[in-house]
Amino acid sequence: MKKPSLPPFAETFGISLGSCTQDEIVGYLTVGPAHANRNGVMHGGAIMAFADVLGGTAASFNLKEGQNTTTIESKTNFLRAVTLGETITGRCVPQHRGGKTHVWQTTVLRADGKPAAITTQTQLVFTWEGQNSPKPAA
Amino acid sequence: MKKPSLPPFAETFGISLGSCTQDEIVGYLTVGPAHANRNGVMHGGAIMAFADVLGGTAASFNLKEGQNTTTIESKTNFLRAVTLGETITGRCVPQHRGGKTHVWQTTVLRADGKPAAITTQTQLVFTWEGQNSPKPAA
Amino acid sequence: MKKPSLPPFAETFGISLGSCTQDEIVGYLTVGPAHANRNGVMHGGAIMAFADVLGGTAASFNLKEGQNTTTIESKTNFLRAVTLGETITGRCVPQHRGGKTHVWQTTVLRADGKPAAITTQTQLVFTWEGQNSPKPAA
Amino acid sequence: MKKPSLPPFAETFGISLGSCTQDEIVGYLTVGPAHANRNGVMHGGAIMAFADVLGGTAASFNLKEGQNTTTIESKTNFLRAVTLGETITGRCVPQHRGGKTHVWQTTVLRADGKPAAITTQTQLVFTWEGQNSPKPAA
Repeated sequence: MKKPSLPPFAETFGISLGSCTQDEIVGYLTVGPAHANRNGVMHGGAIMAFADVLGGTAASFNLKEGQNTTTIESKTNFLRAVTLGETITGRCVPQHRGGKTHVWQTTVLRADGKPAAITTQTQLVFTWEGQNSPKPAA
Repeated sequence: MKKPSLPPFAETFGISLGSCTQDEIVGYLTVGPAHANRNGVMHGGAIMAFADVLGGTAASFNLKEGQNTTTIESKTNFLRAVTLGETITGRCVPQHRGGKTHVWQTTVLRADGKPAAITTQTQLVFTWEGQNSPKPAA
Repeated sequence: MKKPSLPPFAETFGISLGSCTQDEIVGYLTVGPAHANRNGVMHGGAIMAFADVLGGTAASFNLKEGQNTTTIESKTNFLRAVTLGETITGRCVPQHRGGKTHVWQTTVLRADGKPAAITTQTQLVFTWEGQNSPKPAA
Repeated sequence: MKKPSLPPFAETFGISLGSCTQDEIVGYLTVGPAHANRNGVMHGGAIMAFADVLGGTAASFNLKEGQNTTTIESKTNFLRAVTLGETITGRCVPQHRGGKTHVWQTTVLRADGKPAAITTQTQLVFTWEGQNSPKPAA
């Protein structure tokens, strides 16, 4: 059975995937000092990067042959701080899978199960041949 | 004269600061393979992390004694792809600096000077004593 | 039992409330020619106004004595067109009810039950004495 | 010379256009009791509807023959309250005019010239034949 793969950025960042279907992508990240903001908790930029990796993976895992996607917008609400050392979980589910756009929503959960952030993003669906073609432009 | 500092996450990520005032924070990042998405261009999550570091730095650099901030929401529009190997510039300027919230907008520029992304975000301003205090919660 | 009330703008606009609890505000709007865009379907601005009325009502209905709220940001994803003549339903549920902020999400459903739009918004919670006091400023 | 036109919703709402070019759409609205929220100031939903009318008008005024647009997402930051009785001004300028998407930003100014809100939105550009064709779906 087909499994989703992660982009190079996700591996650098320390993200791993859990059990995934086309209807839910699950990922994990253990938060370390490299992810810290100046208050000693997880940086909001790191939280968004984590969520975005899952949203992009979800969109990519739902494409038909010959399709590609590019994220055109992403919005995150931050609800609670994430402590260094804990392992966060992201769950990404579809809000829309249309022919022109996808909308995916990722909830980032702390180790205590409470939501730390919610990211909603739009991916434009288009035909693109990979990195030897002209780069996608929204 | 006071200079802005970067959080640990920014240093891990490879972000450096340029000439900064309280009215404009400028930062740089040379994009490498570690920042790549599955299309071989810069990952949207990495772009957002870069912009968020500058927005947080800008808000932090504008606080009064005893104030702190936490980002409560961030929205990015992605306009153009960023090629690996180029150095991107972020320019963060205030849209609002009120007593309760700040709104900052960061434009991420490619090496060719064209905008790759625009991030608008809200920081909540509050009194918080640092990492030995209870963590901030929105 | 306490019931939520609507602001003057909602009545002008034609919005009515359904069965509401503190955990879910439900509203209705019958879409007419006054809500049309230039393509002859419901204007996105009208969809956002409808969702915002429900979000504001939900936040307001959850306040404690002496608290007030002001919306500080709102983001809508538009998923499907809404035809003139149909009655849309909005369902607003909490994503966060903290001491400083609330985050509410409203799904706007078409008459056929499919989502037309999803609005996520942040309300700042503060103490404000009403319209004879200084106006709230974020 | 071609002039932008307003959709039916804008006329119902009381919006008028000022001097407009393809690079800047300017609109006005005199705020009345019909636009009030429960605090006696202009409702956020009414502010978003105003901004959205200008963003849609701007995108529409920039289309080539045979193109159409639909708004796929809109984000507003609210900065200051708007008093009933004042006339607000909206200025909408492009952040991106690509072949697949437009991004427009509208600043809503109070009568005192201070910004009340900033709306950033994405319009998807596509070919659509008008209201006798199948309705656009994102």
